[in-house]
Amino acid sequence: MHEFVNVELWRKWREEAYARFKSDIEIGYVDTDIVDLIECVFQTDNYFTTSSCSGRIVVLDAMYPWLRDEAYIVFKKHTTIEVNEIESLIYTQRPLNRYWLISSGPIIHFVARSLEAAMELIKNVRSMGFKHSGIISLNPAGVVVEIISGTWTSFLLMDSEGLVVEPSALSRIVAIANEILLEGKRRLNNLKTYFCSLPRR
Amino acid sequence: MHEFVNVELWRKWREEAYARFKSDIEIGYVDTDIVDLIECVFQTDNYFTTSSCSGRIVVLDAMYPWLRDEAYIVFKKHTTIEVNEIESLIYTQRPLNRYWLISSGPIIHFVARSLEAAMELIKNVRSMGFKHSGIISLNPAGVVVEIISGTWTSFLLMDSEGLVVEPSALSRIVAIANEILLEGKRRLNNLKTYFCSLPRR
Repeated sequence: MHEFVNVELWRKWREEAYARFKSDIEIGYVDTDIVDLIECVFQTDNYFTTSSCSGRIVVLDAMYPWLRDEAYIVFKKHTTIEVNEIESLIYTQRPLNRYWLISSGPIIHFVARSLEAAMELIKNVRSMGFKHSGIISLNPAGVVVEIISGTWTSFLLMDSEGLVVEPSALSRIVAIANEILLEGKRRLNNLKTYFCSLPRR
Repeated sequence: MHEFVNVELWRKWREEAYARFKSDIEIGYVDTDIVDLIECVFQTDNYFTTSSCSGRIVVLDAMYPWLRDEAYIVFKKHTTIEVNEIESLIYTQRPLNRYWLISSGPIIHFVARSLEAAMELIKNVRSMGFKHSGIISLNPAGVVVEIISGTWTSFLLMDSEGLVVEPSALSRIVAIANEILLEGKRRLNNLKTYFCSLPRR
Protein backbone atom coordinates (compact mmCIF):
# COMPACT_ATOMS: atom_id res chain seq x y z
CA MET A 1 0.00 0.00 0.00
CA HIS A 2 1.28 3.44 -0.89
CA GLU A 3 2.62 5.48 2.03
CA PHE A 4 1.13 8.93 1.78
CA VAL A 5 1.85 10.02 5.37
CA ASN A 6 5.00 12.11 5.66
CA VAL A 7 6.77 10.51 8.61
CA GLU A 8 8.66 13.70 9.49
CA LEU A 9 5.39 15.62 9.79
CA TRP A 10 3.89 12.75 11.80
CA ARG A 11 6.84 12.75 14.24
CA LYS A 12 6.60 16.51 14.66
CA TRP A 13 2.89 16.24 15.41
CA ARG A 14 3.63 13.45 17.89
CA GLU A 15 6.15 15.62 19.74
CA GLU A 16 3.67 18.47 20.00
CA ALA A 17 0.91 16.11 21.15
CA TYR A 18 3.19 14.60 23.80
CA ALA A 19 4.20 18.03 25.14
CA ARG A 20 0.53 18.98 25.35
CA PHE A 21 -0.36 15.70 27.07
CA LYS A 22 2.34 16.33 29.69
CA SER A 23 1.18 19.88 30.34
CA ASP A 24 -2.47 18.75 30.49
CA ILE A 25 -1.49 16.23 33.19
CA GLU A 26 0.10 19.01 35.24
CA ILE A 27 -2.95 21.22 34.90
CA GLY A 28 -5.13 18.24 35.84
CA TYR A 29 -6.99 18.01 32.52
CA VAL A 30 -6.29 14.30 31.95
CA ASP A 31 -8.38 11.57 33.64
CA THR A 32 -6.03 9.58 35.84
CA ASP A 33 -7.74 6.41 34.53
CA ILE A 34 -6.24 6.98 31.13
CA VAL A 35 -2.70 8.31 31.78
CA ASP A 36 -0.93 4.92 31.76
CA LEU A 37 -2.68 3.89 28.56
CA ILE A 38 -1.66 7.09 26.77
CA GLU A 39 1.94 6.80 27.98
CA CYS A 40 2.07 3.32 26.43
CA VAL A 41 0.53 4.57 23.17
CA PHE A 42 3.24 7.24 22.86
CA GLN A 43 5.88 4.53 23.34
CA THR A 44 4.69 2.56 20.29
CA ASP A 45 6.16 2.93 16.83
CA ASN A 46 2.93 3.61 15.01
CA TYR A 47 0.47 5.59 17.13
CA PHE A 48 -0.10 8.58 19.35
CA THR A 49 -3.24 10.17 20.78
CA THR A 50 -4.56 13.73 20.53
CA SER A 51 -7.61 13.62 22.77
CA SER A 52 -9.25 11.18 25.10
CA CYS A 53 -12.03 10.70 27.63
CA SER A 54 -12.19 7.63 29.87
CA GLY A 55 -15.97 7.81 30.16
CA ARG A 56 -18.20 9.87 32.40
CA ILE A 57 -21.63 10.37 33.90
CA VAL A 58 -23.32 13.69 33.25
CA VAL A 59 -26.72 15.27 33.67
CA LEU A 60 -27.44 17.30 30.56
CA ASP A 61 -30.17 19.92 30.31
CA ALA A 62 -31.12 19.76 26.64
CA MET A 63 -33.94 18.81 24.31
CA TYR A 64 -31.98 15.78 23.08
CA PRO A 65 -29.06 13.93 24.65
CA TRP A 66 -26.71 14.32 21.66
CA LEU A 67 -26.85 18.13 21.59
CA ARG A 68 -23.78 20.24 22.40
CA ASP A 69 -25.06 23.72 21.56
CA GLU A 70 -28.15 24.75 23.52
CA ALA A 71 -27.21 22.08 26.06
CA TYR A 72 -26.02 22.64 29.63
CA ILE A 73 -24.02 20.16 31.67
CA VAL A 74 -25.47 20.56 35.16
CA PHE A 75 -23.58 17.61 36.71
CA LYS A 76 -20.40 15.78 35.64
CA LYS A 77 -18.24 13.04 37.16
CA HIS A 78 -15.62 10.63 35.80
CA THR A 79 -16.30 8.17 38.65
CA THR A 80 -19.36 6.34 39.93
CA ILE A 81 -22.12 8.43 41.46
CA GLU A 82 -24.48 8.24 44.46
CA VAL A 83 -28.26 8.45 44.21
CA ASN A 84 -28.37 11.48 46.54
CA GLU A 85 -26.25 13.49 44.08
CA ILE A 86 -29.01 13.07 41.50
CA GLU A 87 -31.85 13.51 44.00
CA SER A 88 -30.44 16.79 45.24
CA LEU A 89 -30.48 17.99 41.65
CA ILE A 90 -33.94 16.93 40.52
CA TYR A 91 -35.72 17.80 43.76
CA THR A 92 -34.38 21.35 43.88
CA GLN A 93 -34.24 22.42 40.23
CA ARG A 94 -36.32 22.30 37.08
CA PRO A 95 -34.72 21.83 33.67
CA LEU A 96 -34.91 24.53 31.04
CA ASN A 97 -35.44 21.70 28.57
CA ARG A 98 -35.04 18.12 29.80
CA TYR A 99 -32.69 16.47 32.28
CA TRP A 100 -30.89 13.48 30.73
CA LEU A 101 -28.65 11.29 32.88
CA ILE A 102 -25.99 10.07 30.42
CA SER A 103 -23.43 7.39 31.14
CA SER A 104 -20.86 7.19 28.38
CA GLY A 105 -17.79 5.10 27.65
CA PRO A 106 -14.30 5.96 26.47
CA ILE A 107 -13.61 7.93 23.30
CA ILE A 108 -10.07 8.40 22.04
CA HIS A 109 -8.55 9.98 18.95
CA PHE A 110 -5.44 8.20 17.68
CA VAL A 111 -3.09 9.34 14.93
CA ALA A 112 -1.58 6.42 13.02
CA ARG A 113 1.60 6.62 11.00
CA SER A 114 0.16 4.74 8.03
CA LEU A 115 -3.12 3.48 6.64
CA GLU A 116 -2.11 -0.11 7.41
CA ALA A 117 -1.44 0.81 11.04
CA ALA A 118 -4.81 2.59 11.20
CA MET A 119 -6.69 -0.41 9.80
CA GLU A 120 -4.87 -2.81 12.12
CA LEU A 121 -5.86 -0.63 15.08
CA ILE A 122 -9.51 -0.61 14.02
CA LYS A 123 -9.52 -4.38 13.59
CA ASN A 124 -7.85 -5.01 16.95
CA VAL A 125 -9.94 -2.62 19.05
CA ARG A 126 -13.17 -3.93 17.59
CA SER A 127 -12.63 -7.21 19.43
CA MET A 128 -12.09 -5.21 22.65
CA GLY A 129 -15.57 -3.68 22.38
CA PHE A 130 -14.78 -0.49 20.43
CA LYS A 131 -17.14 -1.32 17.59
CA HIS A 132 -17.90 2.11 16.17
CA SER A 133 -14.34 3.02 15.34
CA GLY A 134 -13.10 4.32 12.04
CA ILE A 135 -10.79 6.64 10.14
CA ILE A 136 -12.22 10.15 10.38
CA SER A 137 -9.44 12.12 8.71
CA LEU A 138 -6.50 11.47 6.38
CA ASN A 139 -3.73 13.99 6.04
CA PRO A 140 -0.02 14.10 5.27
CA ALA A 141 0.77 14.32 9.00
CA GLY A 142 -1.17 11.17 9.91
CA VAL A 143 -4.32 9.07 9.77
CA VAL A 144 -6.81 10.05 12.49
CA VAL A 145 -8.81 7.16 13.98
CA GLU A 146 -11.74 7.68 16.36
CA ILE A 147 -12.16 4.81 18.82
CA ILE A 148 -15.57 4.66 20.51
CA SER A 149 -16.88 2.11 22.95
CA GLY A 150 -20.55 1.30 22.41
CA THR A 151 -21.24 1.54 26.14
CA TRP A 152 -23.51 4.59 26.12
CA THR A 153 -26.94 5.05 27.62
CA SER A 154 -29.23 7.95 28.44
CA PHE A 155 -32.05 8.10 30.98
CA LEU A 156 -34.64 10.86 30.73
CA LEU A 157 -35.12 11.97 34.35
CA MET A 158 -37.31 15.03 34.09
CA ASP A 159 -38.91 17.38 31.59
CA SER A 160 -40.70 20.70 31.96
CA GLU A 161 -43.84 18.91 33.21
CA GLY A 162 -41.98 17.12 36.02
CA LEU A 163 -40.43 13.76 36.80
CA VAL A 164 -40.38 11.10 34.09
CA VAL A 165 -38.93 8.32 36.26
CA GLU A 166 -40.47 6.69 39.33
CA PRO A 167 -38.75 8.18 42.41
CA SER A 168 -38.45 4.65 43.84
CA ALA A 169 -36.57 3.52 40.70
CA LEU A 170 -33.93 6.23 40.86
CA SER A 171 -31.48 4.08 42.81
CA ARG A 172 -31.78 1.30 40.17
CA ILE A 173 -31.11 3.84 37.39
CA VAL A 174 -28.04 5.16 39.19
CA ALA A 175 -26.80 1.59 39.68
CA ILE A 176 -27.12 0.89 35.95
CA ALA A 177 -25.39 4.18 35.03
CA ASN A 178 -22.51 3.14 37.31
CA GLU A 179 -22.34 -0.39 35.79
CA ILE A 180 -22.13 1.18 32.32
CA LEU A 181 -19.34 3.53 33.37
CA LEU A 182 -17.40 0.62 34.88
CA GLU A 183 -17.90 -1.53 31.76
CA GLY A 184 -16.35 1.31 29.74
CA LYS A 185 -13.40 1.43 32.12
CA ARG A 186 -12.96 -2.37 31.78
CA ARG A 187 -12.75 -1.97 28.00
CA LEU A 188 -10.28 0.87 28.48
CA ASN A 189 -8.22 -1.46 30.62
CA ASN A 190 -8.17 -4.02 27.80
CA LEU A 191 -6.89 -1.27 25.53
CA LYS A 192 -4.15 -0.46 28.04
CA THR A 193 -3.09 -4.12 28.22
CA TYR A 194 -2.95 -4.21 24.43
CA PHE A 195 -0.91 -1.01 23.98
CA CYS A 196 1.43 -1.67 26.86
CA SER A 197 2.25 -5.08 25.32
CA LEU A 198 3.28 -3.64 21.92
CA PRO A 199 7.03 -3.30 21.21
CA ARG A 200 8.45 -0.02 22.52
CA ARG A 201 10.39 2.27 20.24
CA MET B 1 -2.91 9.90 -3.59
CA HIS B 2 -2.17 6.36 -4.69
CA GLU B 3 -5.15 4.41 -6.03
CA PHE B 4 -5.15 1.03 -4.36
CA VAL B 5 -8.75 0.10 -5.13
CA ASN B 6 -9.04 -2.14 -8.18
CA VAL B 7 -11.85 -0.47 -10.13
CA GLU B 8 -12.82 -3.69 -11.89
CA LEU B 9 -13.34 -5.44 -8.53
CA TRP B 10 -15.23 -2.40 -7.25
CA ARG B 11 -17.56 -2.42 -10.29
CA LYS B 12 -18.18 -6.14 -9.89
CA TRP B 13 -19.07 -5.66 -6.22
CA ARG B 14 -21.36 -2.78 -7.17
CA GLU B 15 -23.22 -4.97 -9.68
CA GLU B 16 -23.72 -7.69 -7.08
CA ALA B 17 -24.84 -5.15 -4.47
CA TYR B 18 -27.33 -3.63 -6.91
CA ALA B 19 -28.79 -7.02 -7.82
CA ARG B 20 -29.20 -7.78 -4.11
CA PHE B 21 -30.78 -4.38 -3.44
CA LYS B 22 -33.33 -5.01 -6.22
CA SER B 23 -34.19 -8.46 -4.92
CA ASP B 24 -34.42 -7.13 -1.33
CA ILE B 25 -36.96 -4.54 -2.53
CA GLU B 26 -39.07 -7.31 -4.08
CA ILE B 27 -38.97 -9.36 -0.90
CA GLY B 28 -39.83 -6.24 1.11
CA TYR B 29 -36.57 -6.09 3.07
CA VAL B 30 -35.79 -2.47 2.20
CA ASP B 31 -37.40 0.45 4.11
CA THR B 32 -39.42 2.42 1.58
CA ASP B 33 -38.01 5.62 3.17
CA ILE B 34 -34.59 4.81 1.83
CA VAL B 35 -35.19 3.35 -1.65
CA ASP B 36 -34.92 6.63 -3.60
CA LEU B 37 -31.73 7.58 -1.78
CA ILE B 38 -30.08 4.26 -2.56
CA GLU B 39 -31.15 4.42 -6.22
CA CYS B 40 -29.42 7.82 -6.46
CA VAL B 41 -26.28 6.49 -4.74
CA PHE B 42 -26.01 3.68 -7.29
CA GLN B 43 -26.25 6.27 -10.07
CA THR B 44 -23.15 8.13 -8.87
CA ASP B 45 -19.67 7.52 -10.19
CA ASN B 46 -17.99 6.91 -6.85
CA TYR B 47 -20.31 5.17 -4.41
CA PHE B 48 -22.70 2.33 -3.76
CA THR B 49 -24.33 0.96 -0.61
CA THR B 50 -24.30 -2.53 0.88
CA SER B 51 -26.63 -2.14 3.84
CA SER B 52 -28.90 0.48 5.28
CA CYS B 53 -31.49 1.22 7.93
CA SER B 54 -33.58 4.39 7.84
CA GLY B 55 -34.00 4.40 11.62
CA ARG B 56 -36.44 2.58 13.87
CA ILE B 57 -38.08 2.34 17.26
CA VAL B 58 -37.66 -0.93 19.12
CA VAL B 59 -38.28 -2.32 22.58
CA LEU B 60 -35.29 -4.45 23.50
CA ASP B 61 -35.28 -6.95 26.38
CA ALA B 62 -31.63 -6.92 27.44
CA MET B 63 -29.35 -5.95 30.31
CA TYR B 64 -27.91 -3.06 28.24
CA PRO B 65 -29.30 -1.30 25.18
CA TRP B 66 -26.24 -1.93 22.97
CA LEU B 67 -26.36 -5.74 23.30
CA ARG B 68 -27.17 -7.97 20.32
CA ASP B 69 -26.55 -11.41 21.79
CA GLU B 70 -28.67 -12.20 24.85
CA ALA B 71 -31.02 -9.46 23.67
CA TYR B 72 -34.56 -9.89 22.39
CA ILE B 73 -36.42 -7.42 20.18
CA VAL B 74 -39.98 -7.58 21.52
CA PHE B 75 -41.31 -4.66 19.44
CA LYS B 76 -40.04 -3.05 16.22
CA LYS B 77 -41.33 -0.34 13.89
CA HIS B 78 -39.77 1.87 11.21
CA THR B 79 -42.51 4.48 11.64
CA THR B 80 -43.80 6.53 14.56
CA ILE B 81 -45.54 4.64 17.35
CA GLU B 82 -48.61 5.09 19.58
CA VAL B 83 -48.50 5.06 23.37
CA ASN B 84 -50.97 2.16 23.54
CA GLU B 85 -48.54 -0.06 21.61
CA ILE B 86 -46.05 0.37 24.45
CA GLU B 87 -48.68 0.19 27.22
CA SER B 88 -50.03 -3.09 25.92
CA LEU B 89 -46.50 -4.48 26.14
CA ILE B 90 -45.44 -3.28 29.59
CA TYR B 91 -48.79 -3.90 31.28
CA THR B 92 -49.03 -7.50 30.11
CA GLN B 93 -45.44 -8.76 30.17
CA ARG B 94 -42.38 -8.69 32.36
CA PRO B 95 -38.88 -8.45 30.88
CA LEU B 96 -36.39 -11.28 31.30
CA ASN B 97 -33.80 -8.53 31.78
CA ARG B 98 -34.84 -4.94 31.17
CA TYR B 99 -37.15 -3.29 28.64
CA TRP B 100 -35.40 -0.46 26.77
CA LEU B 101 -37.35 1.71 24.34
CA ILE B 102 -34.76 2.67 21.73
CA SER B 103 -35.24 5.26 19.01
CA SER B 104 -32.38 5.20 16.54
CA GLY B 105 -31.44 7.08 13.41
CA PRO B 106 -30.18 6.00 10.01
CA ILE B 107 -27.09 3.86 9.54
CA ILE B 108 -25.73 3.14 6.07
CA HIS B 109 -22.67 1.33 4.74
CA PHE B 110 -21.22 2.88 1.60
CA VAL B 111 -18.45 1.51 -0.58
CA ALA B 112 -16.33 4.23 -2.16
CA ARG B 113 -14.21 3.78 -5.24
CA SER B 114 -11.19 5.59 -3.77
CA LEU B 115 -9.83 6.94 -0.51
CA GLU B 116 -10.39 10.51 -1.71
CA ALA B 117 -14.04 9.74 -2.49
CA ALA B 118 -14.41 8.14 0.95
CA MET B 119 -12.94 11.17 2.75
CA GLU B 120 -15.06 13.57 0.71
CA LEU B 121 -18.16 11.60 1.69
CA ILE B 122 -17.24 11.71 5.39
CA LYS B 123 -16.62 15.45 5.23
CA ASN B 124 -19.89 16.16 3.42
CA VAL B 125 -22.17 13.98 5.52
CA ARG B 126 -20.75 15.40 8.76
CA SER B 127 -22.43 18.73 8.00
CA MET B 128 -25.71 16.86 7.42
CA GLY B 129 -25.64 15.50 10.97
CA PHE B 130 -23.83 12.18 10.41
CA LYS B 131 -21.05 12.97 12.83
CA HIS B 132 -19.82 9.53 13.82
CA SER B 133 -18.92 8.40 10.34
CA GLY B 134 -15.64 6.87 9.30
CA ILE B 135 -13.79 4.35 7.16
CA ILE B 136 -14.25 0.93 8.74
CA SER B 137 -12.59 -1.26 6.12
CA LEU B 138 -10.15 -0.88 3.25
CA ASN B 139 -9.84 -3.54 0.63
CA PRO B 140 -8.94 -3.88 -3.05
CA ALA B 141 -12.64 -3.96 -3.98
CA GLY B 142 -13.45 -0.67 -2.22
CA VAL B 143 -13.31 1.57 0.82
CA VAL B 144 -16.16 0.87 3.25
CA VAL B 145 -17.57 3.91 5.07
CA GLU B 146 -20.07 3.66 7.92
CA ILE B 147 -22.40 6.67 8.11
CA ILE B 148 -24.20 7.06 11.44
CA SER B 149 -26.56 9.79 12.53
CA GLY B 150 -26.12 10.78 16.17
CA THR B 151 -29.88 10.73 16.73
CA TRP B 152 -30.10 7.81 19.15
CA THR B 153 -31.75 7.60 22.54
CA SER B 154 -32.78 4.86 24.92
CA PHE B 155 -35.43 4.97 27.65
CA LEU B 156 -35.41 2.33 30.38
CA LEU B 157 -39.09 1.43 30.77
CA MET B 158 -39.04 -1.54 33.12
CA ASP B 159 -36.72 -3.91 34.93
CA SER B 160 -37.33 -7.12 36.85
CA GLU B 161 -38.60 -5.12 39.83
CA GLY B 162 -41.24 -3.28 37.80
CA LEU B 163 -41.81 0.03 36.07
CA VAL B 164 -38.96 2.55 35.99
CA VAL B 165 -40.95 5.33 34.33
CA GLU B 166 -43.96 7.21 35.67
CA PRO B 167 -47.04 5.79 33.89
CA SER B 168 -48.29 9.34 33.38
CA ALA B 169 -45.04 10.25 31.58
CA LEU B 170 -45.25 7.41 29.05
CA SER B 171 -47.01 9.53 26.45
CA ARG B 172 -44.23 12.17 26.71
CA ILE B 173 -41.57 9.48 26.26
CA VAL B 174 -43.33 8.09 23.18
CA ALA B 175 -43.60 11.63 21.77
CA ILE B 176 -39.83 12.15 22.20
CA ALA B 177 -39.03 8.75 20.66
CA ASN B 178 -41.15 9.76 17.65
CA GLU B 179 -39.45 13.19 17.37
CA ILE B 180 -36.06 11.45 17.36
CA LEU B 181 -37.13 9.01 14.65
CA LEU B 182 -38.41 11.90 12.53
CA GLU B 183 -35.21 13.92 13.04
CA GLY B 184 -33.27 10.90 11.71
CA LYS B 185 -35.54 10.76 8.68
CA ARG B 186 -35.01 14.50 8.08
CA ARG B 187 -31.25 13.91 8.02
CA LEU B 188 -31.78 10.98 5.67
CA ASN B 189 -33.72 13.29 3.42
CA ASN B 190 -30.77 15.72 3.35
CA LEU B 191 -28.61 12.80 2.31
CA LYS B 192 -31.05 11.97 -0.48
CA THR B 193 -31.02 15.58 -1.72
CA TYR B 194 -27.22 15.48 -1.74
CA PHE B 195 -26.86 12.16 -3.58
CA CYS B 196 -29.61 12.86 -6.07
CA SER B 197 -27.88 16.15 -6.97
CA LEU B 198 -24.52 14.49 -7.84
CA PRO B 199 -23.71 13.92 -11.53
CA ARG B 200 -25.14 10.65 -12.83
CA ARG B 201 -22.90 8.16 -14.55
